[in-house]
Amino acid sequence: MKYLDRIDSPNDLKRLSIDELPVLCEEIREFLNLVVFETGGHLSSNMGVVELTVALHYVFDLIKDKVIFDVSHQCYPHKILTGRRKVFHTLRQYKGITGFTNTKESPYDNFIFGHAGTSISTALGIATAKRLKKEDGKAIAVIGDASIGAGMAFEALNHTGHIGEDLLVILNDNCMSISQTVGSLSKYLTKIRITPLYKEMRRDVASILEKIPGIGGKLKETVERLADLVRLRLSGGDIFEELNFDYYGPIDGHDIPLLLHALETVKDRKGPILLHIITEKGKGHDGAMSDPEKYHGISPSKKKSQVAEGQAKPSISFTEAFSQAMIELAKEDEKVVGITAAMPGGTGLNSFEKVFPERYFDVGICEQHAVGMAAGQSTLGLKPVCAIYSTFLQRAYDQVFQEVCLNNNHVIFALDRAGIVGQDGATHAGVFDIAYLRTFPNIVLMAPRSSLELKEMLRFSLKLNCPVGIRFPRGNCEIPFDSDGFQPIELGKAEVLKEGSDVILIGYGVMANSCLKTAAILEKDGIDASVVNPRFVKPLDSKLINYLLEQGKPIITVEDHSVKGGFGSAVLELAHCNGHKSLNISVLGIPDQFVEHGPRDQILHDLGLDPEGIALFVKSHILERLNFVSAV
Amino acid sequence: MKYLDRIDSPNDLKRLSIDELPVLCEEIREFLNLVVFETGGHLSSNMGVVELTVALHYVFDLIKDKVIFDVSHQCYPHKILTGRRKVFHTLRQYKGITGFTNTKESPYDNFIFGHAGTSISTALGIATAKRLKKEDGKAIAVIGDASIGAGMAFEALNHTGHIGEDLLVILNDNCMSISQTVGSLSKYLTKIRITPLYKEMRRDVASILEKIPGIGGKLKETVERLADLVRLRLSGGDIFEELNFDYYGPIDGHDIPLLLHALETVKDRKGPILLHIITEKGKGHDGAMSDPEKYHGISPSKKKSQVAEGQAKPSISFTEAFSQAMIELAKEDEKVVGITAAMPGGTGLNSFEKVFPERYFDVGICEQHAVGMAAGQSTLGLKPVCAIYSTFLQRAYDQVFQEVCLNNNHVIFALDRAGIVGQDGATHAGVFDIAYLRTFPNIVLMAPRSSLELKEMLRFSLKLNCPVGIRFPRGNCEIPFDSDGFQPIELGKAEVLKEGSDVILIGYGVMANSCLKTAAILEKDGIDASVVNPRFVKPLDSKLINYLLEQGKPIITVEDHSVKGGFGSAVLELAHCNGHKSLNISVLGIPDQFVEHGPRDQILHDLGLDPEGIALFVKSHILERLNFVSAV
Repeated sequence: MKYLDRIDSPNDLKRLSIDELPVLCEEIREFLNLVVFETGGHLSSNMGVVELTVALHYVFDLIKDKVIFDVSHQCYPHKILTGRRKVFHTLRQYKGITGFTNTKESPYDNFIFGHAGTSISTALGIATAKRLKKEDGKAIAVIGDASIGAGMAFEALNHTGHIGEDLLVILNDNCMSISQTVGSLSKYLTKIRITPLYKEMRRDVASILEKIPGIGGKLKETVERLADLVRLRLSGGDIFEELNFDYYGPIDGHDIPLLLHALETVKDRKGPILLHIITEKGKGHDGAMSDPEKYHGISPSKKKSQVAEGQAKPSISFTEAFSQAMIELAKEDEKVVGITAAMPGGTGLNSFEKVFPERYFDVGICEQHAVGMAAGQSTLGLKPVCAIYSTFLQRAYDQVFQEVCLNNNHVIFALDRAGIVGQDGATHAGVFDIAYLRTFPNIVLMAPRSSLELKEMLRFSLKLNCPVGIRFPRGNCEIPFDSDGFQPIELGKAEVLKEGSDVILIGYGVMANSCLKTAAILEKDGIDASVVNPRFVKPLDSKLINYLLEQGKPIITVEDHSVKGGFGSAVLELAHCNGHKSLNISVLGIPDQFVEHGPRDQILHDLGLDPEGIALFVKSHILERLNFVSAV
Repeated sequence: MKYLDRIDSPNDLKRLSIDELPVLCEEIREFLNLVVFETGGHLSSNMGVVELTVALHYVFDLIKDKVIFDVSHQCYPHKILTGRRKVFHTLRQYKGITGFTNTKESPYDNFIFGHAGTSISTALGIATAKRLKKEDGKAIAVIGDASIGAGMAFEALNHTGHIGEDLLVILNDNCMSISQTVGSLSKYLTKIRITPLYKEMRRDVASILEKIPGIGGKLKETVERLADLVRLRLSGGDIFEELNFDYYGPIDGHDIPLLLHALETVKDRKGPILLHIITEKGKGHDGAMSDPEKYHGISPSKKKSQVAEGQAKPSISFTEAFSQAMIELAKEDEKVVGITAAMPGGTGLNSFEKVFPERYFDVGICEQHAVGMAAGQSTLGLKPVCAIYSTFLQRAYDQVFQEVCLNNNHVIFALDRAGIVGQDGATHAGVFDIAYLRTFPNIVLMAPRSSLELKEMLRFSLKLNCPVGIRFPRGNCEIPFDSDGFQPIELGKAEVLKEGSDVILIGYGVMANSCLKTAAILEKDGIDASVVNPRFVKPLDSKLINYLLEQGKPIITVEDHSVKGGFGSAVLELAHCNGHKSLNISVLGIPDQFVEHGPRDQILHDLGLDPEGIALFVKSHILERLNFVSAV
């Protein structure tokens, strides 16, 4: 590395000449390629913004000027250039640096972000604050062509244009989100991209106007107005101009001199500015360029095995189980439709699309619209299954409330990535969904502990006529058990997995499996535990829980969800509502803090939510009080 | 009433001739004027859509065709024409018809709605379902120029255009939302409205092109392309055309023949269509036309007193208290800024705007963006106060999570209309906010029971450096007590209002006042109750609650919020977390069902949450068990 080794801060970068920057960019690409295949992470998006990031740091002072990266999964070059090169090999590793911007890591980062469409609003907040505080510096939002389709981004563009604030929006247009960008706006951007034709035309128009002889009075005025219209029209970016942005572009986002020139041009201009750059996702990596979706997220691997996420897994994942169940059940019931918000691969609905293209809807990164549309479909008797990650459904909280639950519409939410998600960390953790969904009347909420149970819950959901949520975690189903002995799903009916005499463990979803393992550990210490798979958090199995409470044994609820308002909280409410006054319930779950990134098992271990941790809790907190002689 | 008396269904309407429709419209206006000043409700918006509603029912069969009114506060003419004329005097009255569309009232209503921006998504859901089910009929969304600025509406437009679905969007453009419509899009719509000029120009352009002699080859082609561009440009609605909608309009929304013609024209056209109509909000009522904001929401009144909401109230409302506190505190601290999402009057920030126009932001009906912008401002040390109704903050749930709580940004949420809101009913009730906010780490949550406490909580919030939520109800502060004896606000510190020996009542926010009244009732029966004003639900006063629990007396928590995940639930969690196993806690609040509309006091009474109801609960459920001899 000729240049990169010398760059420990943007100031080091500024010492390079413009001619040296393209070489630096190649070095960054090489570095990214090297590290990300080791650590796992987002490759394609970062390969696409190398030049942009270098140019931003070259032209601006990103302490004084503030840049907000939308989603911020494309912040790797930014991290490398802002003093984190030497720790970059710890990317997304346990206790290492995160895969997103993070205010705890660097003063160059302004937010912890992971959800899409938020950059323009927050940058506008910074711009307005700078104006009010009379502080120098530019506010800059870098947003992709998929994220800009999120409703919140439109709200922010609309407001920024209205108040004419001094804000630079850089539209990083790589013609695709994770898969293909959805939406008319994206088609429109494609149209803009053919500007050379328009530029040529503009010259022709000018010559036409010159050639019209002696046009005076009203006609002349009209022609001038016409010329204005044409000029506006030909500038491209009409839609942004209508929103009162000054539009610049589109320009090649890999051409350093051009980028520098464009950024220098807009640097001191006031008001809302949109700079449209065209980049190639995955640029510089042959595989990533030809299949950017595959290389969107890379799993960590031993020595560059180049295995993309989802491949070569030893057993079936919950996502895959959902994917298969959808196809099977949709074959049986033609009313089933599938909806994703720009996550066909992540949710497994890509397979569904292949079999039922007509019944498949990818709405783009628009969770609010996804839920509203599903509600509309259900009013005509369709059975929409909205496959949205637990954390991303948060964006549609109000739509789940009004369009679905208040109207008691039959929409089924498949909440993948519920619980601890691993390397993506706090922005992606699905640890609030029980709390935010169970307060709504009408909804039925469940969680399976196996692939079979997931399928049967989905089947059961299709027979209901009310809102339903099914949560399941990232990762593999641990129990590939066959259908022998499977107890059919009944509304609000729990399943007793093991009967024991000393203590009762109730584990929601996959935590029931952990509780079984806990029971095995406890058994070695002579402690006999019952294990319950509640299946439902709403409605809870009131009868069983009353029965268990009456036994007077210690009860421990276990969930991979916040202890605030979660499964255990629901059990406490039920117990009190049913008039039990003497209780011995302990609630295990995620404490009232945001979860750091790291391998799922490691995080669960740290939180005491692995079988060993639960066993330790039982022994130290519960049984001591009952004067058990602990074998520990 | 010559015609209206005869119309009990849209079929009756269809029997009228076109010439008779304008008279009918006047009759509907007269009827609205008569009834709404009695019942209270939305006047201006309904006066504006009389002709549109008549025309829709005249041209379409709104059982087969499905119309979704956005927000649906403008559905009164629709209700009058669809069999609800004779019960229209019960509008928004207890047990009467609701102020919004309601599927329980009529097969002509497709949703219970009250939040903005949801019509296009749900209508698209219906359109896609019709296509898949091969059912006849049009899906129609009627949306105002303010609601269309909501992010969700943009998401839906973008997706509809992309898939080219057969959907009619009617943009009801009255140039204002509740107050003035905010956003560049709205400015753009104003620009479109001056089309006559453009139309004239188009003719001129045509004649210019004719007058250019003998242009051949490339030049001719260029001119043709130029003509195409001009034609597109001149059609108005360019922004919608870019989103792949066929744009029609703008037309006069009060001109029945024109409306009928336009609707007939678009009725059988396929694909996404946007029909832009211009209406006058409050048309037909002089007062409402000159001051539509004043007449947006009318309070019920005895015999047409024409008192608009907010006027002539006997004591200060919480909104007014907040409004005054904002101004007072902002004078002391220049970092305070105020943000509203199109509710300057409703939140009381209109007064703040007058004193601090620079520090005031109305972002339009864009709660997501409001919260994102606030987060951005806070990163530079401003202290943004987002004044958003409890129910509308639901739209920004994900932004409260990520931009504010995860980033631990100092944004203060003033949640007006928390609890039971009265005549607006379930869509507007703020009965989930404790549950949805308290699961987030970092946030501090409080509720005042008086105007002074509200101000002091706001003052206290400004000194913190973390997310804060303050909830307060619609209506007047009951206790106008002065500052003597006021206990200063301390983080997580409750206030004991009354000490008693028999039972402990903990009432969150204004429910503390109800509990004081309950104590007075109980006193007559010889029952001595303690009353606690917890002030905070997060952090709870752990020390006090532990102390109370140790006393072993029955504890009753009272809240105007869902019992699922609310204040009482938080107390239960704390008690269990602190290891208390023998409890006597009862949680009073709103049961797991949506709340109907009606006067706030009436609804609280029905729910047993008025002082008498709480007293009854204490006597029958709690003290009986303690073998008290009830004096009842």
